[in-house]
Amino acid sequence: MSKRAFNFCAGPAALPEAVLQRAQAELLDWQGKGLSVMEMSHRSDEYMGIAAKAEQDLRDLLAIPSNYRVLFLQGGASQQFAEIPLNLLPEDGVADYIDTGIWSKKAIEEARRFGNIKVAASAKGYDYFAIPGQNEWQLSKDAAYLHYTPNETIGGLEFDWIPEVGEVPLVADMSSDILSREIDVSRFGLIYAGAQKNIGPSGLVVVIVREDLLGRARSACPTMLNYQVAADNGSMYNTPATFSWYLSGLVFEWLKEQGGVEAMEQRNRAKKDLLYGAIDASELYSNPIATNARSWMNVPFRLADERLDQPFLVGAEARGLLNLKGHRSVGGMRASIYNAVGLDAVQALVAYMAEFEKERG
Amino acid sequence: MSKRAFNFCAGPAALPEAVLQRAQAELLDWQGKGLSVMEMSHRSDEYMGIAAKAEQDLRDLLAIPSNYRVLFLQGGASQQFAEIPLNLLPEDGVADYIDTGIWSKKAIEEARRFGNIKVAASAKGYDYFAIPGQNEWQLSKDAAYLHYTPNETIGGLEFDWIPEVGEVPLVADMSSDILSREIDVSRFGLIYAGAQKNIGPSGLVVVIVREDLLGRARSACPTMLNYQVAADNGSMYNTPATFSWYLSGLVFEWLKEQGGVEAMEQRNRAKKDLLYGAIDASELYSNPIATNARSWMNVPFRLADERLDQPFLVGAEARGLLNLKGHRSVGGMRASIYNAVGLDAVQALVAYMAEFEKERG
Repeated sequence: MSKRAFNFCAGPAALPEAVLQRAQAELLDWQGKGLSVMEMSHRSDEYMGIAAKAEQDLRDLLAIPSNYRVLFLQGGASQQFAEIPLNLLPEDGVADYIDTGIWSKKAIEEARRFGNIKVAASAKGYDYFAIPGQNEWQLSKDAAYLHYTPNETIGGLEFDWIPEVGEVPLVADMSSDILSREIDVSRFGLIYAGAQKNIGPSGLVVVIVREDLLGRARSACPTMLNYQVAADNGSMYNTPATFSWYLSGLVFEWLKEQGGVEAMEQRNRAKKDLLYGAIDASELYSNPIATNARSWMNVPFRLADERLDQPFLVGAEARGLLNLKGHRSVGGMRASIYNAVGLDAVQALVAYMAEFEKERG
Repeated sequence: MSKRAFNFCAGPAALPEAVLQRAQAELLDWQGKGLSVMEMSHRSDEYMGIAAKAEQDLRDLLAIPSNYRVLFLQGGASQQFAEIPLNLLPEDGVADYIDTGIWSKKAIEEARRFGNIKVAASAKGYDYFAIPGQNEWQLSKDAAYLHYTPNETIGGLEFDWIPEVGEVPLVADMSSDILSREIDVSRFGLIYAGAQKNIGPSGLVVVIVREDLLGRARSACPTMLNYQVAADNGSMYNTPATFSWYLSGLVFEWLKEQGGVEAMEQRNRAKKDLLYGAIDASELYSNPIATNARSWMNVPFRLADERLDQPFLVGAEARGLLNLKGHRSVGGMRASIYNAVGLDAVQALVAYMAEFEKERG
């Protein structure tokens, strides 16, 4: 294959072709400076400009209020699972977590290593096919924060509402849905997102944190995991992941050119409506998630007969529809349709699904 | 400027042009698969192949014995400053550190937050211009490990010998000299190196650890910082920095094509002999480091009159000789001449230095 495929990978995920083309054009010589962005000192004027522009563009895209700091860190969301309690949970405090699937559970498991964690609600009672309403939640008094996972990348379960927790800081793992639709950042204490789905290359995690939550780290928190240290040093306490940060900045520029998050929301709504519509109208494909909790970004679906999984995947790959195999813990199929996956990709997928059903279903 | 400059940056540092060209050629479409390496699942056959080949090539280059694990992690050397005691120092144990400059001191400072750290020797008595011989070291009995910094990137001070510490695991921060000359890995318990100097892009740190040192992490060690977890999961407990790992693999391939570490050692010897020779032969330039402790990779030098610093840098930049300004804590100049900086770059620098001295010295 010599052309670009339609890539439905859950992450590291597809990037906008225009972004890759720009990165390619300037890979050996950034703006006539005679060197690659990868070869620049992070403290050079050129790189500081790249880094600052990326932050400003993200602030513009999400309308991040000025009392929030934006950090560009390493270690992915999994490292945040430890950083959050190390920074926000006093040793004698309690934090509430909502369990909606595999990623919530990973966050809970890691946080428990550092303090008293209460699962205030779980989707387990709904077989992880629906999200318990807030009237079912058992919130702690004086929780240091409430953590939830707005979109479960593996289960395909997404909140279409933001929890109401009063003064308790709301902490959200937005790795797989940040920038996919409009959100009110001021409702959150801390938002974090691994880059490799809707932002840029892996090896970068973006943390958006309200300033009053800084400076609370435990004495046992490694310096590199301390939000205050990162904020005080503009995410350059040590050398950051400079190329990933730069490439994420190109994605932010691209998003602004596309019309910003509002435009992406419209496009993403059309994409998911098309795909879920095709699933629901078919006899062969099914998705078990409650209608109001279906993920816009990660669409798992099953074929009525498991023996058709392999032929389905082989045929898809032959048409340049890649990475449709579901997560090993769930099986079936999954189409991740992040911002960089266009409506044309979803149209091609839906056309193939119909064709396959006609022939084999 | 439309051609590639000579880049003497201390890090993120110059990369081999051939490596950048290859990355550029396959940036949108890796080997006809229709997607970028940045867009591949880290668990795909294609990416697992890339990752495994990078590790094998590094093993070949350094002749890493089979009882060592090679980890590709995030957070840079600075995160290792915490990870090392969290993994190797029992809460009631003691570790010895050798202080030879700014990076040793950072390692010591961070380690002290996690336990009893003894500075067994310091170059302070030599104004950090020479390394105390091992007969001057005061080693602890039963130290959990001895940590040292074979090359001080800022001070330009480098060991040309390996400490003898018997059964005590030797831990070395080789961020700025790994792969620059031959070493006997079997003398070390753990070697770590931030990638952005002699390996690849920033956002990656390579850890080479003897297997018997795994499994000793404290209960308070975040999962993402636990060497055993990383080793058990092939450095893929979560999504690794896939593009940095891939690009480092291209650097390893390039090093093998160049004749491996032995060939780099010869080339690096010629480069540093040329540059130190020019400094020592001049009236204008000077380097204060004891001859046997001069760094092969980072060559700091001063001009006899500080007022010449600015004109020197301006003239250098006009000739495409970039990033020669010394670290802010030291002043003067610094030429970092890592593997990817060719003899031609050093020749151009030396020619400019002579010309400048003739005109302004």
